[in-house]
Amino acid sequence: MEIFLAEARKLALIVHSGTLDKLLGALILASTAAALDFEVHLYFTFWGLMMLKKGEMEKAGLPATHRHMEEQLREKLKAMNYPTPYEMIRRLKASGRARLYACTPTMEMFGIAREDLIPEVDTLAGAATFFDVAADAAVTLFI
Amino acid sequence: MEIFLAEARKLALIVHSGTLDKLLGALILASTAAALDFEVHLYFTFWGLMMLKKGEMEKAGLPATHRHMEEQLREKLKAMNYPTPYEMIRRLKASGRARLYACTPTMEMFGIAREDLIPEVDTLAGAATFFDVAADAAVTLFI
Amino acid sequence: MEIFLAEARKLALIVHSGTLDKLLGALILASTAAALDFEVHLYFTFWGLMMLKKGEMEKAGLPATHRHMEEQLREKLKAMNYPTPYEMIRRLKASGRARLYACTPTMEMFGIAREDLIPEVDTLAGAATFFDVAADAAVTLFI
Repeated sequence: MEIFLAEARKLALIVHSGTLDKLLGALILASTAAALDFEVHLYFTFWGLMMLKKGEMEKAGLPATHRHMEEQLREKLKAMNYPTPYEMIRRLKASGRARLYACTPTMEMFGIAREDLIPEVDTLAGAATFFDVAADAAVTLFI
Repeated sequence: MEIFLAEARKLALIVHSGTLDKLLGALILASTAAALDFEVHLYFTFWGLMMLKKGEMEKAGLPATHRHMEEQLREKLKAMNYPTPYEMIRRLKASGRARLYACTPTMEMFGIAREDLIPEVDTLAGAATFFDVAADAAVTLFI
Repeated sequence: MEIFLAEARKLALIVHSGTLDKLLGALILASTAAALDFEVHLYFTFWGLMMLKKGEMEKAGLPATHRHMEEQLREKLKAMNYPTPYEMIRRLKASGRARLYACTPTMEMFGIAREDLIPEVDTLAGAATFFDVAADAAVTLFI
């Protein structure tokens, strides 16, 4: 159930990246904004969208530049009992303050169907839908 | 010819990246915004600017992290008859709703002259010009 | 000493990346905005935060995708007598118009303590502090 407040400020976030560091960055920002009563809109595209395929997010790793630190980061996150990206998405959805969009042109480019995606995705949409939200958002970011 | 509407909302986009996925992302956003009557301002810097050199954009590839998918993406884009980044820039300019800026500090850093750039570039400018536009833009993104 | 003007427009920048090209991009934008009397808020997280460790920023290099150009860029910057990222941070702070934040969750993930960071950092804070600033910023960017 979505609990969008009439006067709520909005965060409109494009998640283009699919690496673990960027997913964590995006989802920490999204979770924080939701806790501050922002309406959170997450538009997943390209590598970000590919991480919405069932079972993919668990495999997210670091980008080539930082790959040598992947093992250390994973162990630390586990030791901290840090929520996984997918767990963060489930909590976001449970807050009722976040909506997830999957970019339809990317789905076509990579041959991805609706049933390939995790059920937490709310809307399949093109970029025009992102601008509908972003045009009056307080904060817009491309990650 | 530019057709900027007096009351138009603005999209101010910094294109720092020069890889195919980011160029496509930037140009799909820009094209969509132009179709929605936004004024579109694209400020190309660093690797993004290097892609404005004549003949460079055609060579844009994927970043190291995703390079193994480059062949597949290129073939799919061709099969979809998807417009190339340069074709998207030409259409953007033809819409009259987009202005392209080339970052002058980057040009100096990489020894690039005006005549090296594609003719679709409107303005050579430093970051102050970006802020002139971005300060009252509805959407600002760094890609 | 901070000189924040009551009516000043704000730039709220998340510096997630720690590569030389992105640091330069972020700091050129920040310096330009400060010169235009913006209030500048730089929130360093992930690889960006790691560059705030004493002695780290001097070692910043290019990302894997562009690493073959690192030598050429370094030499050119030296020939141009271009300020280093750390020198740009010192000038920013001297302008009185910039505040630097270090992301506390990142500090915990990577085991970084306050005394490991350069003294120019003003505030240790979580993402909620970023939204306090970003919610009414004229320009918000994720780099």
